[in-house]
Amino acid sequence: MVPLNLMPPKNKADYIVTDSWSEKAVKEGKRVGTVNIAATSKSENFTRIPKQSELKLDTDASYVHFTSNNTISGTQWKTEPQVGNVPLVCDASSDFLHKKIDINKYGLIYAGAQKNIGPAGVTVVIIRKDLLERSQDSLHAYMNYKIHVENDSMYNTPTTFGIYIAGLVFKWLLNMGGLNEMYKRNVEKAKVLYDAIDASDGYYKGTTVKEDRSLMNLTFRLPNEQLEEKFIKEASAKNFSGLKGHRSVGGIRASIYNAFPKKGVEDLVEFMKDFKKNN
Amino acid sequence: MVPLNLMPPKNKADYIVTDSWSEKAVKEGKRVGTVNIAATSKSENFTRIPKQSELKLDTDASYVHFTSNNTISGTQWKTEPQVGNVPLVCDASSDFLHKKIDINKYGLIYAGAQKNIGPAGVTVVIIRKDLLERSQDSLHAYMNYKIHVENDSMYNTPTTFGIYIAGLVFKWLLNMGGLNEMYKRNVEKAKVLYDAIDASDGYYKGTTVKEDRSLMNLTFRLPNEQLEEKFIKEASAKNFSGLKGHRSVGGIRASIYNAFPKKGVEDLVEFMKDFKKNN
Repeated sequence: MVPLNLMPPKNKADYIVTDSWSEKAVKEGKRVGTVNIAATSKSENFTRIPKQSELKLDTDASYVHFTSNNTISGTQWKTEPQVGNVPLVCDASSDFLHKKIDINKYGLIYAGAQKNIGPAGVTVVIIRKDLLERSQDSLHAYMNYKIHVENDSMYNTPTTFGIYIAGLVFKWLLNMGGLNEMYKRNVEKAKVLYDAIDASDGYYKGTTVKEDRSLMNLTFRLPNEQLEEKFIKEASAKNFSGLKGHRSVGGIRASIYNAFPKKGVEDLVEFMKDFKKNN
Repeated sequence: MVPLNLMPPKNKADYIVTDSWSEKAVKEGKRVGTVNIAATSKSENFTRIPKQSELKLDTDASYVHFTSNNTISGTQWKTEPQVGNVPLVCDASSDFLHKKIDINKYGLIYAGAQKNIGPAGVTVVIIRKDLLERSQDSLHAYMNYKIHVENDSMYNTPTTFGIYIAGLVFKWLLNMGGLNEMYKRNVEKAKVLYDAIDASDGYYKGTTVKEDRSLMNLTFRLPNEQLEEKFIKEASAKNFSGLKGHRSVGGIRASIYNAFPKKGVEDLVEFMKDFKKNN
């Protein structure tokens, strides 16, 4: 919906490509207009986030699109790219609500609920009011942000249960002390695992550059694929689930979203130490 | 999504207009191509379903669209319109699963879950396989039926909870004896209320012609609007909810979808008798 609503009338936009999710966004953008790849780390297997100095931005672009957290490669933007007066559009699906952000920096944020917000099937969209003027009347009602806003997000019948649960999650976050507290916990949780990786004398190896490591999806490798297979199998027997890396990259991936407890990470680290000793 | 996917390459389709939901469908169809209104009962306030002989069908149309049940006016198609070799497209949002239908008569059925299927936020789409060939590659992935089919309805992250509950509803239907049993119950339920209306010596008046009365949304009027207001207020105090007719037409509307028990209709009829006696 982003390109359909925001790309006109200039019909060109900048995309920063950091993972296959950004690549999918590019694909949809190209259906509407001209996509300029402002930067990509594809040649380095997306193991890092492009630096500010690398961004080739078009000051006349309709918007700049980036993906704040990359679930497959395990990288995450620590600060937003600086894009001047061009509206910044963010796919925050996999790290929305993991920390407090300055909403004034953004033109539009969209985030699927299934990671930190609530049950799958809800998408949160936050859009700067003036950008609604770009949504053209020729758009189908369902795809038109302006119509959704004018109808209080109820032009179509929304997924009420998912919205209700999201409301409960928001209350849970507020009750625990808000996003600053959540961020503190996320940093602590990730540190437990990254420290263990870094202290393993190279037995476990992080797949990304250290400064771009994700707090949500922690990716690492073992000395070889046979050991990785064994690791996943034995971990699974001990009820550690979802550790298999995305099929496109292999390796190990620990996804520790907001709801995942620190205890779970500590237990995983204990398992990793035992596994290393025995293998 | 129907016009986007099914209208090309001819870019013309027939629409039968029986309520404001059909009118909304027409509006979206017009964004893609030429809409021929094959029939409409608008001049009669949608109080009846057009007869087969009234349909002005184009044998070269991409499809014929109709709305099987009309929640605002309280009418319902008892049998599908006959449309020859042109694919029949049905918005079955408000009466899907209320009875067994012959799926071979349809090119495409779509139905929002919120009436008879499960929680709001799921839409069931059943499409004839050969029609998928009409979905053009230029369509955005999310709007492309073919891509949804190719990805087993998981190209995007679907609303898993809603689908799970829908599965439980399907099992409930099968356990009670299937759609023939459900239809039998729906006919019985509606008969209790329509019989009471017809036996009220004109105090309660159905708003539609008898042969097109809906089994899902039963609409009727009282002698005047003051009495209707009083009726809704007193009914509400006795825990009968949602009886106010749609704001565009007024009057009374009893919505008795699959999940509504016969006992509820019987209690309403008792209330109606008392109300008539006292007013």
